Amino acid sequence: MSSVYNALLDTTLETIIPADSGMRQRARARLEELAIPHWSLGQLMDTAEDLAALTCSMTPMVKRKSIAVMAGDHGIVAAGVSKFPQAVTVEMVRNFLHGKASINAFARHVGADLVVVDAGVAGDLTELYRHEALWNRKIAAGTADFSQGPAMSRDQAIQSIEIGIEVAEHLASSTDLYATGDMGIGNTSPSSAIIATLCGCDIATVTGRGTGLDDEALNNKIAVLDRALALNQPNPDDGLDVLARVGGFEIGAIAGLILGAAAQRKPVVIDGTISTAAALVAASISPASRDYMIAGHCSVEPGHRIALEHLKKKPLLDLQMRLGEGTGAALAMNLVEAAVAVLTQIATFEEACVSQAEKPTNREHQA
Amino acid sequence: MSSVYNALLDTTLETIIPADSGMRQRARARLEELAIPHWSLGQLMDTAEDLAALTCSMTPMVKRKSIAVMAGDHGIVAAGVSKFPQAVTVEMVRNFLHGKASINAFARHVGADLVVVDAGVAGDLTELYRHEALWNRKIAAGTADFSQGPAMSRDQAIQSIEIGIEVAEHLASSTDLYATGDMGIGNTSPSSAIIATLCGCDIATVTGRGTGLDDEALNNKIAVLDRALALNQPNPDDGLDVLARVGGFEIGAIAGLILGAAAQRKPVVIDGTISTAAALVAASISPASRDYMIAGHCSVEPGHRIALEHLKKKPLLDLQMRLGEGTGAALAMNLVEAAVAVLTQIATFEEACVSQAEKPTNREHQA
Repeated sequence: MSSVYNALLDTTLETIIPADSGMRQRARARLEELAIPHWSLGQLMDTAEDLAALTCSMTPMVKRKSIAVMAGDHGIVAAGVSKFPQAVTVEMVRNFLHGKASINAFARHVGADLVVVDAGVAGDLTELYRHEALWNRKIAAGTADFSQGPAMSRDQAIQSIEIGIEVAEHLASSTDLYATGDMGIGNTSPSSAIIATLCGCDIATVTGRGTGLDDEALNNKIAVLDRALALNQPNPDDGLDVLARVGGFEIGAIAGLILGAAAQRKPVVIDGTISTAAALVAASISPASRDYMIAGHCSVEPGHRIALEHLKKKPLLDLQMRLGEGTGAALAMNLVEAAVAVLTQIATFEEACVSQAEKPTNREHQA
Repeated sequence: MSSVYNALLDTTLETIIPADSGMRQRARARLEELAIPHWSLGQLMDTAEDLAALTCSMTPMVKRKSIAVMAGDHGIVAAGVSKFPQAVTVEMVRNFLHGKASINAFARHVGADLVVVDAGVAGDLTELYRHEALWNRKIAAGTADFSQGPAMSRDQAIQSIEIGIEVAEHLASSTDLYATGDMGIGNTSPSSAIIATLCGCDIATVTGRGTGLDDEALNNKIAVLDRALALNQPNPDDGLDVLARVGGFEIGAIAGLILGAAAQRKPVVIDGTISTAAALVAASISPASRDYMIAGHCSVEPGHRIALEHLKKKPLLDLQMRLGEGTGAALAMNLVEAAVAVLTQIATFEEACVSQAEKPTNREHQA
């Protein structure tokens, strides 16, 4: 195979294989025999089946959890697409390291380790790099303003993805279950642009209020993104091109984390809009990587639901959240564990000596 | 106050007071200042506010968890409303005590204690009463067939509720957070009858397939329940009358557990259709008890959503589950803990030294 990208990305892509259909069938066969009304644990059973297939195991490991929050800034904020100042990206990275942000609370709650990666924050984080939980992989001080030209070069796009792969490889020895997270003021704009391109949608249908734009600011955001897409003409058949032209460094890093997890045959819980835009990039580059993604939650941002549908992923949670940081993915990690418990801890009718329904032949898979 | 019911129920009802509106305001004020886009943790923030108000504390305790699974049988199964044989109620109680059922797996998963209560199982459980986790409070060997007359006497209805209160009182010293669960072949039928009566709905709109009826059996179930309601004429203004005429012993016990939790000013997570029918009974008897209820999940059974809407409760999970046993409530206990973490572990803008949005005056409560 000729080297299309760089060595690390190439090797990773070559390693990713689809989930195991034989193990999926074995899991389904057991789940259908559990001493419960047929498939009455619904989506947890679908998830259990997915976990068996992707880990190629009837006892999938999900206990050791790691959340990676990828941080980056966005030149497009100059066009007035966010109501928060760009300095908040740095301030929130500091907040993560002090353990006082939402994702810290949720990581503690689910017993996950947390790493934060500077993939391209605009501010100076030098004083913070001494923290073991912060990785300095800064590509540049934010992307270029993609309303004026491409957000980054193709080489930088590859670099951003390789950051995520590297993080996944580093965490591999201590991680069974990954979750993605993001921090970057303005990053619903590149995410909307990616989603519109890779899902073939109008930008207006996938663009939302982000951190809380009013109607006027939302209309401006849509107009800016519409012009930016017309200017950049990202190629919908090439996720890397889309990432380079209208993406973000943290989005590339999230895509890389997903690819890294897939190469390890481990599940990765996808957070909200930004992470799912990254998942679209990953799936574009490696369609088989989709098998390793679990949709954590559904955000109120309109593009998120569209992106999830494109990936054919049903989110585990729908709590009207729109924060990012990995918060939705972190919460869903508990449900992933519960799904494994369904597969491994519940007795079948036969094992439990429980009588079956009168007409077992009528049972249908309702999933 | 004159004794309308029995002493234990009377005392409990006198003890229940509404959640604290002052503490709700304090909680909301803090949640609105968290260093996140306004109310961007959505329903978890609504739940955090509820928890502060009902526990009357800015640091609600939810760590010590108990799930009570109330079991009972139903005379109406003689009318062919379930496809599982009645013996399954006993078999599943045995399964609970052996730790091999779904609720065991989920109780372990969330770190909750589990008690099982025989409130009126038709079979003989004598050999099982030695298990510490099983309470023998059998009122009768199943209810009477309410397609032929009332399911139970008014005294039995009071007795069933007092069982639940007693369980809550017994668990009080080791419980911060309760969850309800049920076991009883055929118990979607009394639940549908209760929901139709207390929500003022047609029985056909709230009746579902339960454990998996086909179209013909579903139509029979609806016809049976329609006739049973016409025969019994339960009084929609009197939850106790509804429970007595078309309810079940385990449903009364669940209502009692809810009332007991409310009297202790502790949250109780409500499971699916059967538990929510019981919650309607509890709210009918004590409207203030509603403040202590948290809707764990939304079942696929059609009456459940209607009952939740009547109670003005938004479920935390929607995973296409329809198992009962307390499984949905158990899973949601983790989210209740996460809601407390939102209130107690996330820094405000000021505490975290994070810059605020440009137009803080534009922020609106989007919950």
